[in-house]
Amino acid sequence: MTITFTPIGIIHTPFHEPAGTPRQSAFAGHAAGTVEVYPALAEGLADLEGFSHILLLYHFHKSSGYALRCTPFADSAERGLFATRAPRRPNPIGISVVRLLGRRDNILAIEGVDMLDGTPLLDIKPYISDFDSWRGVRNGWHEHAPHRDRATADNRFTTPDTGKGEGNADL
Amino acid sequence: MTITFTPIGIIHTPFHEPAGTPRQSAFAGHAAGTVEVYPALAEGLADLEGFSHILLLYHFHKSSGYALRCTPFADSAERGLFATRAPRRPNPIGISVVRLLGRRDNILAIEGVDMLDGTPLLDIKPYISDFDSWRGVRNGWHEHAPHRDRATADNRFTTPDTGKGEGNADL
Repeated sequence: MTITFTPIGIIHTPFHEPAGTPRQSAFAGHAAGTVEVYPALAEGLADLEGFSHILLLYHFHKSSGYALRCTPFADSAERGLFATRAPRRPNPIGISVVRLLGRRDNILAIEGVDMLDGTPLLDIKPYISDFDSWRGVRNGWHEHAPHRDRATADNRFTTPDTGKGEGNADL
Repeated sequence: MTITFTPIGIIHTPFHEPAGTPRQSAFAGHAAGTVEVYPALAEGLADLEGFSHILLLYHFHKSSGYALRCTPFADSAERGLFATRAPRRPNPIGISVVRLLGRRDNILAIEGVDMLDGTPLLDIKPYISDFDSWRGVRNGWHEHAPHRDRATADNRFTTPDTGKGEGNADL
């Protein structure tokens, strides 16, 4: 069984390769970008400006293949893939929470971007603190990972056989 | 351009129709379920047990079609679709943060489920508070929505022309 999705827009950012790209929004500071939603869908953006933060779901479009264990940027040990945020996954879907600065028609100005320029956008949802911000969280291996404060990605997830850069930086 | 994904497993829950299903994990309390990851991918679950909360990405598999404005469960006014968490979306991908109680091989015991039984699983990511829990959030229309404390969904997103129940309950 397969499920087919069609992008609803494109994310524009200053980042063109994984090396040097923030590995998470939390490390992206004021790095600015824009979300270009296809004009036919612009009406669906109404009321979004009231939210300070939005969830972007997108395709790690330059990712291909995956390994069930990998060494994430924050660690020096191999971890199970689903216990990491690595971009090479069976279904390479990325999630970022970014700050919404404003909207003009179908274009959103955002801050805190951690994805590569040209990333295909799959969905936008409002970040709602009652639903998305959890307390009393135990953060597994990441809690004491040796490189957990590392701010940027490198090219370790570059697909070896094609030489293509890994699509997006994430954990 | 289309993107094709293949489920990595199935989510089992006590909920068989939207009416009465928690509209978000935050309202699901101790509602328990299991995540069945296909055995070939079980190795990727290593190290996940260290995390108290996990992010599930899944397909709103009974959703079809969408409208660019809808009245979400929490409100009595129409809102732009992307400013809601409604399940009928151009790309019907749901996100839930659930509590991870334990793992036995390829089966995860979880709590706080808000999706329908049989939901196809697309991805699992660890919830990491440094990345996923944001402060100083402005929650737009939801902040003062008249029905924001409403705990369960109803069948309003049932697809009218097929009579199928809406796949999953979300905002």
